[in-house]
Amino acid sequence: MSVFQHPWLGGVFHDAEAAEIMGPQAQMKRMLRIEAAWSRVLGDIGRVEPRLAAAAALVIEAAEPDIEALREGTARDGLAVPTLVKLLKAGMDEELWPAVHKGLTSQDVIDTELVLALDLVTQLMDKRLALLAGALDDVTARFGAGRMMGRTRMQAAVEITVADRVLAWQRPLLRHRERLTALRGEVLNLQFGGAAGTRDVLGDQGDAAAAALADHLGLANPHAQWHSARGGLAEVASWLSLVSGSLGKMGQDISLMAQQGLDEIEIAGGGSSSAMPHKQNPILAELLVTLARFNATQLAGMHHALVHEQERSGAAWALEWMLLPQMVQATARGLGAAIELTSNIRRMGGPAS
Amino acid sequence: MSVFQHPWLGGVFHDAEAAEIMGPQAQMKRMLRIEAAWSRVLGDIGRVEPRLAAAAALVIEAAEPDIEALREGTARDGLAVPTLVKLLKAGMDEELWPAVHKGLTSQDVIDTELVLALDLVTQLMDKRLALLAGALDDVTARFGAGRMMGRTRMQAAVEITVADRVLAWQRPLLRHRERLTALRGEVLNLQFGGAAGTRDVLGDQGDAAAAALADHLGLANPHAQWHSARGGLAEVASWLSLVSGSLGKMGQDISLMAQQGLDEIEIAGGGSSSAMPHKQNPILAELLVTLARFNATQLAGMHHALVHEQERSGAAWALEWMLLPQMVQATARGLGAAIELTSNIRRMGGPAS
Amino acid sequence: MSVFQHPWLGGVFHDAEAAEIMGPQAQMKRMLRIEAAWSRVLGDIGRVEPRLAAAAALVIEAAEPDIEALREGTARDGLAVPTLVKLLKAGMDEELWPAVHKGLTSQDVIDTELVLALDLVTQLMDKRLALLAGALDDVTARFGAGRMMGRTRMQAAVEITVADRVLAWQRPLLRHRERLTALRGEVLNLQFGGAAGTRDVLGDQGDAAAAALADHLGLANPHAQWHSARGGLAEVASWLSLVSGSLGKMGQDISLMAQQGLDEIEIAGGGSSSAMPHKQNPILAELLVTLARFNATQLAGMHHALVHEQERSGAAWALEWMLLPQMVQATARGLGAAIELTSNIRRMGGPAS
Amino acid sequence: MSVFQHPWLGGVFHDAEAAEIMGPQAQMKRMLRIEAAWSRVLGDIGRVEPRLAAAAALVIEAAEPDIEALREGTARDGLAVPTLVKLLKAGMDEELWPAVHKGLTSQDVIDTELVLALDLVTQLMDKRLALLAGALDDVTARFGAGRMMGRTRMQAAVEITVADRVLAWQRPLLRHRERLTALRGEVLNLQFGGAAGTRDVLGDQGDAAAAALADHLGLANPHAQWHSARGGLAEVASWLSLVSGSLGKMGQDISLMAQQGLDEIEIAGGGSSSAMPHKQNPILAELLVTLARFNATQLAGMHHALVHEQERSGAAWALEWMLLPQMVQATARGLGAAIELTSNIRRMGGPAS
Repeated sequence: MSVFQHPWLGGVFHDAEAAEIMGPQAQMKRMLRIEAAWSRVLGDIGRVEPRLAAAAALVIEAAEPDIEALREGTARDGLAVPTLVKLLKAGMDEELWPAVHKGLTSQDVIDTELVLALDLVTQLMDKRLALLAGALDDVTARFGAGRMMGRTRMQAAVEITVADRVLAWQRPLLRHRERLTALRGEVLNLQFGGAAGTRDVLGDQGDAAAAALADHLGLANPHAQWHSARGGLAEVASWLSLVSGSLGKMGQDISLMAQQGLDEIEIAGGGSSSAMPHKQNPILAELLVTLARFNATQLAGMHHALVHEQERSGAAWALEWMLLPQMVQATARGLGAAIELTSNIRRMGGPAS
Repeated sequence: MSVFQHPWLGGVFHDAEAAEIMGPQAQMKRMLRIEAAWSRVLGDIGRVEPRLAAAAALVIEAAEPDIEALREGTARDGLAVPTLVKLLKAGMDEELWPAVHKGLTSQDVIDTELVLALDLVTQLMDKRLALLAGALDDVTARFGAGRMMGRTRMQAAVEITVADRVLAWQRPLLRHRERLTALRGEVLNLQFGGAAGTRDVLGDQGDAAAAALADHLGLANPHAQWHSARGGLAEVASWLSLVSGSLGKMGQDISLMAQQGLDEIEIAGGGSSSAMPHKQNPILAELLVTLARFNATQLAGMHHALVHEQERSGAAWALEWMLLPQMVQATARGLGAAIELTSNIRRMGGPAS
Repeated sequence: MSVFQHPWLGGVFHDAEAAEIMGPQAQMKRMLRIEAAWSRVLGDIGRVEPRLAAAAALVIEAAEPDIEALREGTARDGLAVPTLVKLLKAGMDEELWPAVHKGLTSQDVIDTELVLALDLVTQLMDKRLALLAGALDDVTARFGAGRMMGRTRMQAAVEITVADRVLAWQRPLLRHRERLTALRGEVLNLQFGGAAGTRDVLGDQGDAAAAALADHLGLANPHAQWHSARGGLAEVASWLSLVSGSLGKMGQDISLMAQQGLDEIEIAGGGSSSAMPHKQNPILAELLVTLARFNATQLAGMHHALVHEQERSGAAWALEWMLLPQMVQATARGLGAAIELTSNIRRMGGPAS
Repeated sequence: MSVFQHPWLGGVFHDAEAAEIMGPQAQMKRMLRIEAAWSRVLGDIGRVEPRLAAAAALVIEAAEPDIEALREGTARDGLAVPTLVKLLKAGMDEELWPAVHKGLTSQDVIDTELVLALDLVTQLMDKRLALLAGALDDVTARFGAGRMMGRTRMQAAVEITVADRVLAWQRPLLRHRERLTALRGEVLNLQFGGAAGTRDVLGDQGDAAAAALADHLGLANPHAQWHSARGGLAEVASWLSLVSGSLGKMGQDISLMAQQGLDEIEIAGGGSSSAMPHKQNPILAELLVTLARFNATQLAGMHHALVHEQERSGAAWALEWMLLPQMVQATARGLGAAIELTSNIRRMGGPAS
């Protein structure tokens, strides 16, 4: 029912690459990868025999948990991990059980899974930001010297060049790439705290276990868990909305340029109308505006989720699950649509003076 | 990827009845129903021979449009209707074509489809509001005379009865039912305007056609289209958020009552923890808070969509598609969860004085 | 610092009539009016001698409480009423004290004060909605037969008349007036509950006291308090945002029509530019868009405030204080600006066909 | 009418230092400082005689523009700068006029003024973040070894130390200081573009003029204007909401700890009730929650303002004026309240084990 997965509306809103990264199959694989890495950690730090740890990890990596059971467990517990752990144990010798999940808490698994997904999806976005900036370079190369009316407060102001307008779209994208580098450094962190977030479930081995787990997963190991400190995820959300906001500005500009009477741009492709065959609607430009407003709307919720009470809040945490994955998809789709739209520009502005 | 359709998170967030009403299969059926009714209308008002109109309607009602083609068409046109009309025509004799879609515009079909869905889903919600109010009556019957501490600003104030607290949850629900009656009267309206919303595509037969179409579909016929007047849908969104807000208040109260130290309520069932087997988490109470904050967040976007430029806005309209169906699902799920939660109350408050 | 009260930005954002109604002087007068009415009620129901009640009421009505003391008290208590009551008592004979505030709680006073303000300010808005609808009638009378291009998805669609476009602005306004009638009936209710909302502070005289107080204040007496049931205020907020949203749509349309190249409207007055003396910016049309987005944004917060825990929440309640008065001002200003803008229309659309 | 400036509610919401920085008097001084610096720049780059430039700058710096005239001008033009320039010229010899404002545009002045204000106010916040972190160190020093129940999903989980809980409040604050350093580096940039943002109003002297102006004002000189690229301000808004969100989490925790039955904290001071003299309400803790939700709400609007069409949008820009200054005040007040609240902690948690 979500537009992103809708059978026909998905034609507009779906982004295949983002969906594959964020989809449940990849999610489950990452959860299993985390649980398997943890089994190995329990071996590394000597809580279980390395042989048993390795054996448990292999079973976990190959597991294909019963989705219906997970769903029922999630309905009961509010999250899938307790059932997942039971299913994993049920699929292995009892001798291996001490090497499974012991010392982790559900939030460690679920947050770390999200971080691993964000690693991939922000790489995708960075690549697309670079592609889009390049596609805008092409527009400048082809039409940049052309003149067009600069418009302020929706009124004709003074003439500018096409290159000026394109630069105003392009500069923020480069800035978003710089921001992303900093953001990734801050957010791609292991979540590990154990039951109440104090990393002491394993006595004094907590920090060693955290370091080992981070190493297995290729993540940074922050000096503490962040169960209730959701600022990093709120910043990811802000960044996503900054990106879609910049694209929305570009989409709005293109929609305005495409108006009959202004005729400042010509776009190949574009939508037809069931009632007016002569129309060619700037679908993708409009879509960028829609996605910008969608993300701006969701962002508020991600910041309400900062009021995350005590050691861990069920209510605030689940709100993130409802919002952030959709913001990711909206942003990825926006970038894909902007690249397509840009490459469809057949003319922009007038002749050079 | 949406929590509502997610393979395991769906165990918490999915509502089967709402999903069936709002799902794409039912959506397509309603779109076909509208197109078929319109064919009949074209017969009724003498634009085509009634025989041809009836024949076209039968073909349309039985159609099973190729979803992949619809998806491609939607990707191109921004909406499915132009392709749907082509597919419908391709499935019938050319002689019937004048009886298909002629005089409608895509927005007429898509908005009317939504209205038909809202008709069903608000009936469902009304039924659940009544059930929930009844379940709360049971709580009062069993525990209402018991005493509990009234709390203001999260501090003990003066004693109240359990019945007082339950009434504070129940009264708004009854009010929401009254509001819904008024709202349904206002919103369950045919959308019909034709290309630019002036109902004059059929010359002076526009109003007659509208009346006939409304009659076929069991909807009210407003005196004009509402292509760009989205206040009705914004009010639906407000109502959904009022409902989930009231449930969120109840969920928050129950979460607070369930705290060790307060121990003012005992709930059967409830979530287990992967790290702490002794815990019993008030999953459904938390869920109500989450859903309330989700809907409050989305509502802003539905009101931004009121800035719907000119005769029809692509950007503002598509924003509604992204938000309203999710608000419907969140509200339906909240009502279902609240009924279950209420019926799980094993004790509330202390002994009667 | 708020734009509404800002020394120079107020030129754009300030609405004098709304500011007078909502301002602190009028607020204090209404609080005193409520406290005085309550003293009389205590006489009416025989809790104090009518003579003492009347004397206390007279003192209260004439009081001019020390604002600095109120501010300090508010800093300490989170609200002004405890200090206000102390100040009132300090200004009268001790013999009158039993006739002061006894049985009320702060929220009774503060919410009822708000309701009295909303009574006045929604009357103002209703009057302005009627004026605006009338001003639009004038536009239709002068230019309605003219032709203009209907535009959908920001693209030329088919020709419409100026009257068609104006009607699309006007119809929602009439609908808002109908909604307001219903809303006023629902919201203009006395708040009275006493300490924990149970109306039993006066034993079995609670309902009689409520009826008498409502009578003194010219408000409806609901069958119970609504300390924690904030749906009515959330609906007021929704209505305000519906109104400003409709005005935002009109403002957006006018901004688009005023573009050079489209030139579909001519507005007298309008802004000059510090850098470009030739420009004439459609200030008021833009303002309507700004105010619509402002209110849509605030509305989310008013719905988050529905999660109002237990018998009374300090945190959720104070959030309303931060949001609703600003929404009132934004809406009032929007209506004023829309009336001015409409009456400044010098030409709209082209010649009649 | 805004709670921040309200005569008695200001006792809760007003922050004197932030109000002084953001207030209209300081704002006007900064605008004059910018105009004066620009006059000097026009001398520096040889557009006017340095003698005239210096003379104009002196007049401008000493000017006390007629606020009523500014207000009328703002009402007409949507912003104060055109009138300000006229008033400044009226106060000097005509010979100096070429040294006034020539080549600047209103947005250059208004955005740069905001940046100068943000410079000061973020310094204030940084200082307070450090103070608050220090005050939390004191709490840890006094009570850190004490035990308290760790709570997850609002249920008792396992015991933690008071220090664990305090650290969860403190760590994000330190992170916000690091973020602020990066943010200031990005945002404290001169705005300079001229009429259509191309810096070419002064021919090829645009960049030199920008460099000189930045130098005069102690700001960085970005390589281009950012009239329509509002990502920096949106990031400021995000940062403000991150800070208030962290404080909101702390406030929520303290409100929960202060519940009778949990009794995990004792706070000196605190609010009294008009109806219940025995109560002591945790006013400041609640306030932190309110302010967090306020800022989370506003943030959405700041991101909607990213859809800033063409070379400059009146509508999106004015939305920032309505939102950002209030977010600044809410955040500053939150920091002040959190420091006071922390220093009022008389006991936290139980005895050490």
